[in-house]
Amino acid sequence: MDHMTHPLDEAVQFDHRDGLAVATTHPGWMNMVGPYGGITASTVMAAIMEHPDRAGDPVALTVNYAAPIAEGEWTLDVRPVRTNRSNQHWLIVAEQGDHVVATATGVTSRVAGGWGDQELDIPANDGPHAYPVAKSPLPLRWLDRYDMRFVSGGFDQIPSDSSRSVLWLNHTEPRAWDHVAVAGAVDAVFPRGFLRIGTTTAFGTVTMTTYFHANAAELAETSEHVLMDTTAARYANGYYDQSVRLFSESGALVATSHQAVYFKPGALG
Amino acid sequence: MDHMTHPLDEAVQFDHRDGLAVATTHPGWMNMVGPYGGITASTVMAAIMEHPDRAGDPVALTVNYAAPIAEGEWTLDVRPVRTNRSNQHWLIVAEQGDHVVATATGVTSRVAGGWGDQELDIPANDGPHAYPVAKSPLPLRWLDRYDMRFVSGGFDQIPSDSSRSVLWLNHTEPRAWDHVAVAGAVDAVFPRGFLRIGTTTAFGTVTMTTYFHANAAELAETSEHVLMDTTAARYANGYYDQSVRLFSESGALVATSHQAVYFKPGALG
Repeated sequence: MDHMTHPLDEAVQFDHRDGLAVATTHPGWMNMVGPYGGITASTVMAAIMEHPDRAGDPVALTVNYAAPIAEGEWTLDVRPVRTNRSNQHWLIVAEQGDHVVATATGVTSRVAGGWGDQELDIPANDGPHAYPVAKSPLPLRWLDRYDMRFVSGGFDQIPSDSSRSVLWLNHTEPRAWDHVAVAGAVDAVFPRGFLRIGTTTAFGTVTMTTYFHANAAELAETSEHVLMDTTAARYANGYYDQSVRLFSESGALVATSHQAVYFKPGALG
Repeated sequence: MDHMTHPLDEAVQFDHRDGLAVATTHPGWMNMVGPYGGITASTVMAAIMEHPDRAGDPVALTVNYAAPIAEGEWTLDVRPVRTNRSNQHWLIVAEQGDHVVATATGVTSRVAGGWGDQELDIPANDGPHAYPVAKSPLPLRWLDRYDMRFVSGGFDQIPSDSSRSVLWLNHTEPRAWDHVAVAGAVDAVFPRGFLRIGTTTAFGTVTMTTYFHANAAELAETSEHVLMDTTAARYANGYYDQSVRLFSESGALVATSHQAVYFKPGALG
């Protein structure tokens, strides 16, 4: 598939007006209410990557989901607030109409190489082709964008007494991995509270932070399927933490991601 | 000790000028270059907590360390950018002189109670009084503010082939736990790269995100000593991820925190 006609690349195209990047929601990435949170993160990441002053590869990205994004245009004010010798700090305020829909901060870095080590192994599994492609119980458009194969903790395990799922993930329409793709993919597993509590619970990610351990060169060589190991530690006062580790097929830890998720059991009764 | 004369509370006092909160660095919290990163996070958290429009308890806080803060005054522009029925989104831009020294985003929430569960147990240990108070190899003022007792992964383990340390932490000068204190304490363990690589390595936290699992009522009842379980997953291209889990003595997971840390082996050689 042509890179520029891939649904991900279509979704992260920008017009530029009044110093703002203008994004448009894409029908292929719609969630229950508004766009899939991952495509919003990918869009923010893409707005940093295309900025003419950007230096280096992403190290970290935090996206805060302030309000639902309605179908249509939304604007991103993308500012490099500080450029140091080795890194750069980014601040993004996204609006639609007259209100803020998202804020974000990011760090990019020009450092490459140096001392390296990985302390985590990829979870034991039989490879992506040993597991069937999962069918979601919910007909959401964005789910068509990903091929998911559960090693453990799939839809058939709901409700479970553990928040852990391990799955292989790929784009349905083939596309190489880059930071824009990873920024969105880390949100692709279904909510951990859905696994614990069940399908009548309402969910919303309020903030998500991703650390990118692989630079552009390493991501370009990353396998088609990536493994997600995901869990949650505590549910309290209407929120829980969801954590994701993303591995390449060769076992490299490509990214780690964390989010705070609002949940309300029975709200979808 | 009187609450308002505790070094932490002294450090998070504000003047107010031109719609900004004006903070002043505190000599008791100095690090090698500028203030300890944790006290900067505590100051940001305090600026949200004292804001007249703030509704509810903190759920998440991300602080980005854009530039060193010099001794003296710095300003925080603290804005509630979106207030929803159940939560509120905050954006903070901190400046000193004419440049940005930090940015931050936060989420507060009015939700309390509801379904809860914790999937992580506190690591096995013999309680805070079974371990000696650690002596740091570096004479940094902020280290005087904390009582640290290592269960494993202490200074005597450098260099280690694991990034994991487990320790008991308390304020040296007694003070109850609240979100301002937790926001800073999660940064108190020495850098994981220091444990792995050694004392001639230079470090700097570039961004730190903390999720607060305990609300104000629960924190007020939290034990004096809290247990930190901390590790790192991958070192690559000059950065690594440091993760912290903070437990109360009774085993409740009070907070989880993650940061991206810049490192340069041999830089202090």
